[in-house]
Amino acid sequence: MNATPSYVIRIATQEDVAAVVALLADDPLGATRENTDGAATCYQAAFNRIEIDPNNDVLVAERDGQIVGCLQLTLIPSLTRSGMTRAQIEGVRIAASERGLGLGGQMMTWAERAARELGAGIVQLTTDKSRTDAHRFYENLGYTASHEGMKKDLA
Amino acid sequence: MNATPSYVIRIATQEDVAAVVALLADDPLGATRENTDGAATCYQAAFNRIEIDPNNDVLVAERDGQIVGCLQLTLIPSLTRSGMTRAQIEGVRIAASERGLGLGGQMMTWAERAARELGAGIVQLTTDKSRTDAHRFYENLGYTASHEGMKKDLA
Repeated sequence: MNATPSYVIRIATQEDVAAVVALLADDPLGATRENTDGAATCYQAAFNRIEIDPNNDVLVAERDGQIVGCLQLTLIPSLTRSGMTRAQIEGVRIAASERGLGLGGQMMTWAERAARELGAGIVQLTTDKSRTDAHRFYENLGYTASHEGMKKDLA
Repeated sequence: MNATPSYVIRIATQEDVAAVVALLADDPLGATRENTDGAATCYQAAFNRIEIDPNNDVLVAERDGQIVGCLQLTLIPSLTRSGMTRAQIEGVRIAASERGLGLGGQMMTWAERAARELGAGIVQLTTDKSRTDAHRFYENLGYTASHEGMKKDLA
Protein backbone atom coordinates (compact mmCIF):
# COMPACT_ATOMS: atom_id res chain seq x y z
CA MET A 1 0.00 0.00 0.00
CA ASN A 2 1.44 3.38 -0.97
CA ALA A 3 1.59 6.22 1.50
CA THR A 4 -0.56 9.28 0.69
CA PRO A 5 1.58 11.50 -1.51
CA SER A 6 2.95 14.64 0.08
CA TYR A 7 2.37 17.98 -1.64
CA VAL A 8 3.76 21.46 -1.07
CA ILE A 9 1.12 24.14 -1.64
CA ARG A 10 2.48 27.66 -2.18
CA ILE A 11 1.96 30.92 -4.07
CA ALA A 12 3.12 30.71 -7.69
CA THR A 13 6.00 32.73 -9.10
CA GLN A 14 6.82 33.74 -12.68
CA GLU A 15 8.87 30.52 -13.01
CA ASP A 16 5.71 28.42 -12.54
CA VAL A 17 3.67 30.05 -15.31
CA ALA A 18 4.50 27.60 -18.11
CA ALA A 19 3.66 24.61 -15.89
CA VAL A 20 0.39 26.20 -14.78
CA VAL A 21 -0.57 26.89 -18.41
CA ALA A 22 0.14 23.23 -19.26
CA LEU A 23 -2.34 22.22 -16.52
CA LEU A 24 -4.95 24.70 -17.80
CA ALA A 25 -4.61 23.33 -21.34
CA ASP A 26 -4.84 19.66 -20.22
CA ASP A 27 -8.61 19.85 -19.75
CA PRO A 28 -11.61 19.29 -22.07
CA LEU A 29 -12.64 22.98 -21.98
CA GLY A 30 -9.16 24.40 -21.51
CA ALA A 31 -7.91 22.57 -24.60
CA THR A 32 -10.14 24.80 -26.74
CA ARG A 33 -9.20 28.04 -24.96
CA GLU A 34 -5.53 27.94 -24.09
CA ASN A 35 -2.44 28.60 -26.14
CA THR A 36 -0.25 25.55 -25.57
CA ASP A 37 2.88 27.69 -25.65
CA GLY A 38 3.08 28.40 -21.93
CA ALA A 39 5.83 30.95 -22.56
CA ALA A 40 3.40 32.97 -24.74
CA THR A 41 3.57 36.64 -23.81
CA CYS A 42 -0.20 36.71 -23.08
CA TYR A 43 0.39 34.52 -20.02
CA GLN A 44 3.48 36.36 -18.81
CA ALA A 45 1.61 39.69 -19.03
CA ALA A 46 -1.42 38.24 -17.22
CA PHE A 47 0.78 36.81 -14.48
CA ASN A 48 2.45 40.19 -14.00
CA ARG A 49 -1.00 41.75 -13.47
CA ILE A 50 -1.82 39.05 -10.89
CA GLU A 51 1.53 39.40 -9.11
CA ILE A 52 1.27 43.17 -8.56
CA ASP A 53 -2.34 42.90 -7.35
CA PRO A 54 -2.52 42.38 -3.56
CA ASN A 55 -6.01 40.84 -3.98
CA ASN A 56 -4.95 38.10 -6.42
CA ASP A 57 -2.74 35.04 -6.10
CA VAL A 58 -2.24 31.85 -8.05
CA LEU A 59 -1.65 28.83 -5.80
CA VAL A 60 0.29 25.82 -7.02
CA ALA A 61 0.81 22.34 -5.61
CA GLU A 62 4.19 20.72 -6.09
CA ARG A 63 5.08 17.04 -5.85
CA ASP A 64 8.72 16.01 -6.26
CA GLY A 65 9.47 19.34 -7.95
CA GLN A 66 6.60 19.04 -10.45
CA ILE A 67 3.61 21.44 -10.53
CA VAL A 68 0.58 19.14 -10.25
CA GLY A 69 -2.22 21.51 -9.23
CA CYS A 70 -3.24 25.16 -9.46
CA LEU A 71 -6.01 27.57 -8.63
CA GLN A 72 -6.49 31.33 -8.49
CA LEU A 73 -7.68 33.08 -5.34
CA THR A 74 -9.15 36.60 -5.60
CA LEU A 75 -10.36 38.79 -2.74
CA ILE A 76 -13.22 41.14 -3.63
CA PRO A 77 -14.10 43.93 -1.20
CA SER A 78 -17.86 44.41 -1.33
CA LEU A 79 -20.70 46.47 0.15
CA THR A 80 -23.25 43.63 0.00
CA ARG A 81 -23.86 41.30 2.96
CA SER A 82 -23.00 44.10 5.41
CA GLY A 83 -19.72 44.99 3.71
CA MET A 84 -18.43 41.42 3.47
CA THR A 85 -15.21 40.66 1.61
CA ARG A 86 -15.73 37.80 -0.87
CA ALA A 87 -13.11 35.25 -1.82
CA GLN A 88 -13.39 33.88 -5.33
CA ILE A 89 -11.75 30.80 -6.76
CA GLU A 90 -11.09 30.30 -10.50
CA GLY A 91 -9.08 27.96 -12.67
CA VAL A 92 -8.85 24.92 -10.39
CA ARG A 93 -6.90 22.16 -12.12
CA ILE A 94 -5.32 18.94 -10.84
CA ALA A 95 -2.89 16.92 -12.99
CA ALA A 96 -4.44 13.69 -14.31
CA SER A 97 -1.80 11.66 -12.42
CA GLU A 98 -2.92 13.06 -9.05
CA ARG A 99 -6.70 12.93 -9.31
CA GLY A 100 -8.56 11.07 -6.57
CA LEU A 101 -5.69 11.45 -4.11
CA GLY A 102 -7.16 14.33 -2.11
CA LEU A 103 -5.04 17.11 -3.58
CA GLY A 104 -8.01 19.19 -4.79
CA GLY A 105 -9.48 19.20 -1.30
CA GLN A 106 -6.10 20.14 0.21
CA MET A 107 -5.77 23.09 -2.18
CA MET A 108 -9.31 24.31 -1.51
CA THR A 109 -8.74 24.05 2.26
CA TRP A 110 -5.49 26.03 1.91
CA ALA A 111 -7.31 28.71 -0.12
CA GLU A 112 -10.25 28.90 2.30
CA ARG A 113 -7.93 29.25 5.31
CA ALA A 114 -6.02 32.05 3.58
CA ALA A 115 -9.29 33.74 2.61
CA ARG A 116 -10.57 33.59 6.19
CA GLU A 117 -7.29 34.98 7.56
CA LEU A 118 -7.57 37.85 5.04
CA GLY A 119 -11.05 38.72 6.31
CA ALA A 120 -13.32 37.03 3.74
CA GLY A 121 -16.74 35.85 4.94
CA ILE A 122 -17.78 33.82 1.90
CA VAL A 123 -16.05 31.83 -0.84
CA GLN A 124 -17.59 31.63 -4.29
CA LEU A 125 -16.81 30.05 -7.62
CA THR A 126 -18.50 29.16 -10.87
CA THR A 127 -18.11 25.85 -12.61
CA ASP A 128 -19.25 25.00 -16.13
CA LYS A 129 -22.56 23.11 -16.13
CA SER A 130 -20.88 20.30 -18.10
CA ARG A 131 -18.40 19.58 -15.25
CA THR A 132 -20.65 17.28 -13.21
CA ASP A 133 -17.71 15.65 -11.38
CA ALA A 134 -16.60 19.12 -10.27
CA HIS A 135 -20.09 19.90 -8.94
CA ARG A 136 -19.97 16.80 -6.71
CA PHE A 137 -16.43 17.67 -5.60
CA TYR A 138 -17.45 21.17 -4.48
CA GLU A 139 -20.71 19.99 -2.88
CA ASN A 140 -18.70 17.51 -0.82
CA LEU A 141 -16.57 20.44 0.37
CA GLY A 142 -19.68 22.32 1.55
CA TYR A 143 -20.47 24.49 -1.47
CA THR A 144 -24.10 25.08 -2.48
CA ALA A 145 -25.15 25.63 -6.10
CA SER A 146 -27.45 28.49 -5.12
CA HIS A 147 -26.75 30.74 -8.11
CA GLU A 148 -26.79 30.83 -11.88
CA GLY A 149 -23.34 31.66 -13.25
CA MET A 150 -23.79 33.88 -16.31
CA LYS A 151 -21.11 34.93 -18.81
CA LYS A 152 -20.92 37.22 -21.83
CA ASP A 153 -18.00 37.55 -24.21
CA LEU A 154 -16.92 41.14 -24.81
CA ALA A 155 -15.03 40.39 -28.02
CA MET B 1 -46.77 60.65 -22.56
CA ASN B 2 -43.69 61.18 -20.36
CA ALA B 3 -40.23 61.49 -21.82
CA THR B 4 -37.79 58.71 -20.92
CA PRO B 5 -36.15 59.75 -17.65
CA SER B 6 -32.57 60.93 -17.84
CA TYR B 7 -29.96 59.37 -15.57
CA VAL B 8 -26.39 60.24 -14.70
CA ILE B 9 -24.24 57.14 -14.27
CA ARG B 10 -20.97 57.69 -12.41
CA ILE B 11 -18.50 56.14 -9.98
CA ALA B 12 -19.71 56.31 -6.37
CA THR B 13 -17.98 58.31 -3.65
CA GLN B 14 -18.07 57.94 0.13
CA GLU B 15 -21.05 60.37 0.19
CA ASP B 16 -23.14 57.84 -1.77
CA VAL B 17 -22.62 54.88 0.57
CA ALA B 18 -25.74 55.34 2.73
CA ALA B 19 -27.96 55.63 -0.38
CA VAL B 20 -26.37 52.54 -1.96
CA VAL B 21 -26.92 50.56 1.26
CA ALA B 22 -30.58 51.64 1.26
CA LEU B 23 -30.90 50.17 -2.28
CA LEU B 24 -29.16 46.95 -1.25
CA ALA B 25 -31.52 46.55 1.73
CA ASP B 26 -34.68 47.25 -0.35
CA ASP B 27 -34.65 43.76 -1.89
CA PRO B 28 -36.15 40.39 -0.83
CA LEU B 29 -32.71 38.82 -0.24
CA GLY B 30 -30.93 42.01 0.77
CA ALA B 31 -33.52 42.68 3.49
CA THR B 32 -32.24 39.60 5.35
CA ARG B 33 -28.55 40.41 4.88
CA GLU B 34 -28.07 44.17 5.20
CA ASN B 35 -27.84 46.43 8.20
CA THR B 36 -30.38 49.18 7.52
CA ASP B 37 -28.14 51.77 9.13
CA GLY B 38 -26.30 52.85 5.99
CA ALA B 39 -23.84 54.84 8.09
CA ALA B 40 -22.78 51.62 9.86
CA THR B 41 -19.02 51.41 10.07
CA CYS B 42 -19.01 48.02 8.27
CA TYR B 43 -20.10 49.76 5.06
CA GLN B 44 -17.73 52.71 5.41
CA ALA B 45 -14.82 50.32 5.94
CA ALA B 46 -15.86 48.17 2.95
CA PHE B 47 -16.19 51.23 0.74
CA ASN B 48 -12.71 52.37 1.74
CA ARG B 49 -11.34 48.98 0.61
CA ILE B 50 -13.17 49.35 -2.72
CA GLU B 51 -12.03 52.94 -3.22
CA ILE B 52 -8.32 52.21 -2.77
CA ASP B 53 -8.48 49.15 -5.07
CA PRO B 54 -7.83 50.08 -8.72
CA ASN B 55 -9.70 46.92 -9.83
CA ASN B 56 -12.95 47.73 -8.01
CA ASP B 57 -15.59 50.45 -8.44
CA VAL B 58 -19.18 50.92 -7.38
CA LEU B 59 -21.28 52.60 -10.06
CA VAL B 60 -24.36 54.62 -9.17
CA ALA B 61 -27.19 56.08 -11.24
CA GLU B 62 -28.59 59.43 -10.20
CA ARG B 63 -31.94 60.97 -11.14
CA ASP B 64 -32.75 64.47 -9.92
CA GLY B 65 -30.06 64.17 -7.25
CA GLN B 66 -31.34 60.80 -5.92
CA ILE B 67 -29.35 57.56 -6.12
CA VAL B 68 -31.67 55.13 -7.93
CA GLY B 69 -29.33 52.37 -9.10
CA CYS B 70 -26.03 50.71 -8.21
CA LEU B 71 -23.71 47.89 -9.16
CA GLN B 72 -20.14 46.86 -8.42
CA LEU B 73 -17.61 46.28 -11.19
CA THR B 74 -14.47 44.21 -10.46
CA LEU B 75 -11.62 43.47 -12.85
CA ILE B 76 -9.89 40.13 -12.28
CA PRO B 77 -6.58 39.48 -14.02
CA SER B 78 -6.47 35.80 -14.93
CA LEU B 79 -4.28 33.16 -16.60
CA THR B 80 -7.23 31.19 -18.01
CA ARG B 81 -8.59 31.81 -21.54
CA SER B 82 -5.11 32.82 -22.74
CA GLY B 83 -4.51 35.33 -19.96
CA MET B 84 -7.86 37.07 -20.28
CA THR B 85 -8.90 39.74 -17.80
CA ARG B 86 -12.40 39.06 -16.47
CA ALA B 87 -14.91 41.72 -15.49
CA GLN B 88 -17.31 40.75 -12.75
CA ILE B 89 -20.53 42.43 -11.75
CA GLU B 90 -22.10 42.13 -8.30
CA GLY B 91 -24.82 43.85 -6.31
CA VAL B 92 -27.00 45.19 -9.15
CA ARG B 93 -30.00 47.04 -7.71
CA ILE B 94 -32.52 49.43 -9.27
CA ALA B 95 -34.90 51.51 -7.09
CA ALA B 96 -38.50 50.23 -7.24
CA SER B 97 -39.63 53.58 -8.71
CA GLU B 98 -37.36 53.18 -11.75
CA ARG B 99 -37.87 49.54 -12.70
CA GLY B 100 -38.93 48.83 -16.27
CA LEU B 101 -37.58 52.16 -17.55
CA GLY B 102 -34.35 50.81 -19.04
CA LEU B 103 -32.00 51.95 -16.30
CA GLY B 104 -30.65 48.47 -15.55
CA GLY B 105 -29.68 48.01 -19.20
CA GLN B 106 -28.04 51.45 -19.27
CA MET B 107 -25.97 50.63 -16.19
CA MET B 108 -24.90 47.24 -17.56
CA THR B 109 -23.93 48.83 -20.89
CA TRP B 110 -21.89 51.49 -19.04
CA ALA B 111 -20.12 48.78 -17.02
CA GLU B 112 -19.43 46.62 -20.09
CA ARG B 113 -18.00 49.55 -22.03
CA ALA B 114 -15.72 50.45 -19.10
CA ALA B 115 -14.67 46.80 -18.76
CA ARG B 116 -13.82 46.57 -22.48
CA GLU B 117 -11.81 49.81 -22.32
CA LEU B 118 -9.90 48.39 -19.35
CA GLY B 119 -8.96 45.28 -21.33
CA ALA B 120 -11.52 42.71 -20.16
CA GLY B 121 -12.57 39.99 -22.61
CA ILE B 122 -15.50 38.53 -20.71
CA VAL B 123 -18.09 39.77 -18.21
CA GLN B 124 -19.45 37.42 -15.59
CA LEU B 125 -21.92 37.53 -12.74
CA THR B 126 -23.89 35.19 -10.53
CA THR B 127 -27.53 35.65 -9.70
CA ASP B 128 -29.51 33.77 -7.07
CA LYS B 129 -31.57 30.94 -8.60
CA SER B 130 -34.70 32.48 -7.03
CA ARG B 131 -34.31 35.70 -9.07
CA THR B 132 -36.05 34.52 -12.25
CA ASP B 133 -36.79 38.08 -13.45
CA ALA B 134 -33.08 38.85 -13.20
CA HIS B 135 -32.22 35.75 -15.28
CA ARG B 136 -34.45 37.00 -18.11
CA PHE B 137 -33.00 40.51 -17.80
CA TYR B 138 -29.41 39.24 -18.18
CA GLU B 139 -30.30 36.79 -20.97
CA ASN B 140 -31.87 39.67 -22.90
CA LEU B 141 -28.55 41.52 -22.54
CA GLY B 142 -26.66 38.57 -24.07
CA TYR B 143 -25.59 36.64 -20.96
CA THR B 144 -25.63 32.82 -21.00
CA ALA B 145 -26.31 30.76 -17.87
CA SER B 146 -23.48 28.36 -18.69
CA HIS B 147 -22.20 27.85 -15.15
CA GLU B 148 -23.29 26.77 -11.69
CA GLY B 149 -22.64 29.54 -9.17
CA MET B 150 -21.51 27.93 -5.91
CA LYS B 151 -21.06 29.62 -2.53
CA LYS B 152 -19.81 28.60 0.91
CA ASP B 153 -20.00 30.67 4.07
CA LEU B 154 -16.69 30.94 5.90
CA ALA B 155 -18.26 31.99 9.22
